[in-house]
Amino acid sequence: MVVAVIGANGGIGRRLLPLLNDAGHEPVGVVRSEDQFDTIRERGGEPRLGDLEDEFAPALEGADAIVFTAGAGGSTGWDKTILVDLWGAERAVRACAKRGIDRFVMISSRGAGDPERRQGPIKPYIVAKHVADRTLQRSSLDETILRPTRLTDEEGTGRVAAYFDEDPETGDPISRADVAQSVVTCLDGDATVGHAITLYGGGTPIEEALRPDRSTQ
Amino acid sequence: MVVAVIGANGGIGRRLLPLLNDAGHEPVGVVRSEDQFDTIRERGGEPRLGDLEDEFAPALEGADAIVFTAGAGGSTGWDKTILVDLWGAERAVRACAKRGIDRFVMISSRGAGDPERRQGPIKPYIVAKHVADRTLQRSSLDETILRPTRLTDEEGTGRVAAYFDEDPETGDPISRADVAQSVVTCLDGDATVGHAITLYGGGTPIEEALRPDRSTQ
Repeated sequence: MVVAVIGANGGIGRRLLPLLNDAGHEPVGVVRSEDQFDTIRERGGEPRLGDLEDEFAPALEGADAIVFTAGAGGSTGWDKTILVDLWGAERAVRACAKRGIDRFVMISSRGAGDPERRQGPIKPYIVAKHVADRTLQRSSLDETILRPTRLTDEEGTGRVAAYFDEDPETGDPISRADVAQSVVTCLDGDATVGHAITLYGGGTPIEEALRPDRSTQ
Repeated sequence: MVVAVIGANGGIGRRLLPLLNDAGHEPVGVVRSEDQFDTIRERGGEPRLGDLEDEFAPALEGADAIVFTAGAGGSTGWDKTILVDLWGAERAVRACAKRGIDRFVMISSRGAGDPERRQGPIKPYIVAKHVADRTLQRSSLDETILRPTRLTDEEGTGRVAAYFDEDPETGDPISRADVAQSVVTCLDGDATVGHAITLYGGGTPIEEALRPDRSTQ
């Protein structure tokens, strides 16, 4: 499949491109600046320009699936959380619906299913992700929502703890590499379509953990 | 009717309480601090404590209708825009649905119907209001959404320009007093239920302007 990765230069996106390549897909890396094109190519992706706050729909041309792993990040203002994490996701969902791109994998966040359970400085972020997820869930697209807990830059283990449509509050952090590998596994079939899956670090091989008949890892 | 005003100490809320009283309603002023109780009483409202970021549903006890005119305002961070304007509104809608309070008047903003038409520094605010409005529209409540343009502190004229489910881009600013009077008129019947109404300053008497058979003022 041609898989367009929105946020291809981010922590998960960078790791995802070569994994998609290895799995036989054709990854497209959507980035905001041509300065990032070489990096995308080195990682096996076809670079295309697209800006979630501006024009980006043309970058999705020919895609069979989308992975949304863009985020304003912690070093920008909350206005960017609204414009990128929330509204950018909504724009991406609309663009896919309009272009008939049916498969959408969203990188969300643990807790985004119910912001009322979260307090403290992260709450606005959780609300933004909740709204984005809900927009996707109410769309006509075949969606998988992955909700990883705290992310690390550790090497991937190929193992996770996955909770289908459940959201336990405690568990181990998970590496960005294992989240990226989980995306590839999701795209390998439709077993995870229609589910929101909380991801922690864990000991179950990813392919096994992402079968929906397993309610816990 | 018992009308609970969320954001009763704001620019529109303060003007709304005495107008509700004059119209024979029993206004309840929901505020975040007991320091504001005297002000609410002086304006003819029954003060109750409620915080959109914390517990506020008990403040709605016995209400027949809700007016949501709370907003984080320009002097706080965008995180508050997410927590108050967007998520606070969603919490209010949920609380009303749970308590069987059917009538909900939302003070939104011109342009909130389609954030894609807006750019610039106000856009995150418009997105937040759009999401809040949409949540209300998709709820089971009988909603009126008022979308005033730029607000002034001028005296009320009793006249506006109202556009039902339309959103022209230009027009005169409108006074907070005339927005408050428009709320009272909306609550006077169900003529505006199910509509999103853009409000500009104008020359049509409010009662006439808020009849839905008038597509423009």
